[in-house]
Amino acid sequence: MKLKGFQKLTPVDEALQRFFAAVDFKPSKKVAVHVNSALNRILAENINAQTDVPRFNRSAVDGYAIKAKETIGATQFKPRVFHLTSDSYLDNASAKQVWTGNMLPQGADAVVMLEETRLGADEVEVWTQIASGDNVSKKGEELRKGDVAVEESTRLKPQHLGLIATLGIDKVTVYDKPGIGVLATGNELVELGNKPRQTQIFESNRIVLSMLCSELGGEPLDLGIARDDVDDIAERLKLGLARSDFIITSGGTSVGGLDLVPEVVNKVAKPGIIVHGIALRPGMPTALAASEGKPILILPGNPVAAIVGFEVFARPLICKMLGMKRVEPRLSLQAKMTRRVATALGRKNFVRVHVFRRYGQLLAEPVSARGSGLISTMTKANGYVIVPENREGLEEEELISVQLFDIVED
Amino acid sequence: MKLKGFQKLTPVDEALQRFFAAVDFKPSKKVAVHVNSALNRILAENINAQTDVPRFNRSAVDGYAIKAKETIGATQFKPRVFHLTSDSYLDNASAKQVWTGNMLPQGADAVVMLEETRLGADEVEVWTQIASGDNVSKKGEELRKGDVAVEESTRLKPQHLGLIATLGIDKVTVYDKPGIGVLATGNELVELGNKPRQTQIFESNRIVLSMLCSELGGEPLDLGIARDDVDDIAERLKLGLARSDFIITSGGTSVGGLDLVPEVVNKVAKPGIIVHGIALRPGMPTALAASEGKPILILPGNPVAAIVGFEVFARPLICKMLGMKRVEPRLSLQAKMTRRVATALGRKNFVRVHVFRRYGQLLAEPVSARGSGLISTMTKANGYVIVPENREGLEEEELISVQLFDIVED
Repeated sequence: MKLKGFQKLTPVDEALQRFFAAVDFKPSKKVAVHVNSALNRILAENINAQTDVPRFNRSAVDGYAIKAKETIGATQFKPRVFHLTSDSYLDNASAKQVWTGNMLPQGADAVVMLEETRLGADEVEVWTQIASGDNVSKKGEELRKGDVAVEESTRLKPQHLGLIATLGIDKVTVYDKPGIGVLATGNELVELGNKPRQTQIFESNRIVLSMLCSELGGEPLDLGIARDDVDDIAERLKLGLARSDFIITSGGTSVGGLDLVPEVVNKVAKPGIIVHGIALRPGMPTALAASEGKPILILPGNPVAAIVGFEVFARPLICKMLGMKRVEPRLSLQAKMTRRVATALGRKNFVRVHVFRRYGQLLAEPVSARGSGLISTMTKANGYVIVPENREGLEEEELISVQLFDIVED
Repeated sequence: MKLKGFQKLTPVDEALQRFFAAVDFKPSKKVAVHVNSALNRILAENINAQTDVPRFNRSAVDGYAIKAKETIGATQFKPRVFHLTSDSYLDNASAKQVWTGNMLPQGADAVVMLEETRLGADEVEVWTQIASGDNVSKKGEELRKGDVAVEESTRLKPQHLGLIATLGIDKVTVYDKPGIGVLATGNELVELGNKPRQTQIFESNRIVLSMLCSELGGEPLDLGIARDDVDDIAERLKLGLARSDFIITSGGTSVGGLDLVPEVVNKVAKPGIIVHGIALRPGMPTALAASEGKPILILPGNPVAAIVGFEVFARPLICKMLGMKRVEPRLSLQAKMTRRVATALGRKNFVRVHVFRRYGQLLAEPVSARGSGLISTMTKANGYVIVPENREGLEEEELISVQLFDIVED
């Protein structure tokens, strides 16, 4: 039997570079969606203010619009009295009642709050001295006509949609969701809902990978479970290539005789495999490929290695396909290691940690060094630390940067 | 004219307590959903392992299953030779080929990796000494039968769904999404897609509040825009009360004569208003009410105050309605203030900041002290600092805790 061990492991950065070079990043398609359906989509245009915002000088409170200089010296004991008017033009002696959001009458430059006044029959007493501009939202204060309100490539959060609605814009152009085919391979795998034979296990990587795609803004397409069979794998890959922009597989990629995926990819795809065997832990048997510019990410079946491979290779790729200018970072924070962890020199290591607070300090407890393949280590952890190739581990009490994938309890 | 100023502002903690006391938290309804649709839902049951995971001793690599003690002293120069077998029972002199995930034959207690062997005709040379348990995923190593795999009240992330799928579970029970009616009020407001008259503005709070509800896991219901009219407000409130579990309104809640919402709420709801006027900045005119145990949150029209009021009052309420055991925290991190900010003594202040990295340090730049009502301050900021009632501000260079609502660029 011929051994198919990896002669040489490719460093992560070099692997990424070669992968991206083989991918044909077509300009992402753009689609118009209503602001109500745009949450978390990636904006594909600059949103410009079509008018000043506010469009007019507006009262920021309920009260009386006046000329500020006429209040000089006013106190509760020595109020200034203004004549009430409903005109849209104000002279020095007049005040006009306004509610929050109302346009200021011409001639007014400030609003005195209701609480600082007393209303008479056709006049109002003002009890305080105010300055020009007090309690007024000035025309163009928020945005000037032509200003960029929200920049292209922004992930639209509620506050962005609020600002866009303020501008009167009800449809926005966003980048289309890349279609991502997700395939699992392996004779040992059984579909959820079926009964496993004694030596079979339930397939779980497709759901994890599909949900990770969805969270980022991709549209996963389920390519099912392929048997360890050249034709079955080839057929599903071809279907995926025809229907999606990117394919992720899991399983069938280490050095064993049944590890068929890279072999089949080389048959159905040109140029096929670009890198196989990466200086990454877990995730060493990951392979990167392309089919006429479409990326194919071949992940190990080990569920933790599959997630790490996704983080390293799929995340930046999907961000780029989504039209983002940078890889969207996971939230990172600094924490102190509770104990030493050994890692492999010459590999980029992903160490899972559980970050928690104790006495106001953030601590990171490594989750189970043994059993790298256990998906439960990913549910016990809430983040990972990336240990670079030139380190052999992390020290106890070392301050490290954790990338979070779940919440940190208060 | 009678002034309706706030006699006394209620501290936030007291307001929350009184609000929660007036709400009848019925046990949240539970619904069964397929794991494929369960992302970000809140688990309403403990997920227990029905069997040991793995269910059997499994090879973690591709190689040969053997008895570890038979490899003592083996090296590349002095290999141990094993007879190849395909039996499901192994004697001391035999080895059986296994692929990753395969069940170990009886009698085997370790697997030697393919790379450490050389295959002959009907035998295999083993080049290294291994220990019992090496390269084996032991039965029950991940979970023992009966163990809690995922705890009730967990927000289901991809890794939780992966673990659940591993257990062969395809349906999970989650808490039903609370229905949340969202109403805006104000004569000055115009619906997106319409043309504003000169003094009108586009309504934008409903979209922000609805999206904040969706992000947490609620199901928003649009109650539209009510005119400043008792009947119009009352009708929409009644509709909302009939159809949703919680109502959020914005606008019409300060001390002005047209601020009708609290008045109408007192007409249509029992007990009606519980607290009006809160020691919160922005957000002082917020009111809290209940209608036969259903909560009503009455937010100011000021878009920033509305968001702050949502954070303070709606977030903990929705978390509780969703069956969560704690208020889900926003991600918080420590940063250094770039400059001094003054805040109001006796109020809980929400100071918007933009957190960024400079020379490896996290800095927090306050966003526009002036113009608290500007929604664009929420898009320029990516987090807020909560300044407690007994402080008059934050100092330059002070290390503060920021609650994040958007990403921090690397």
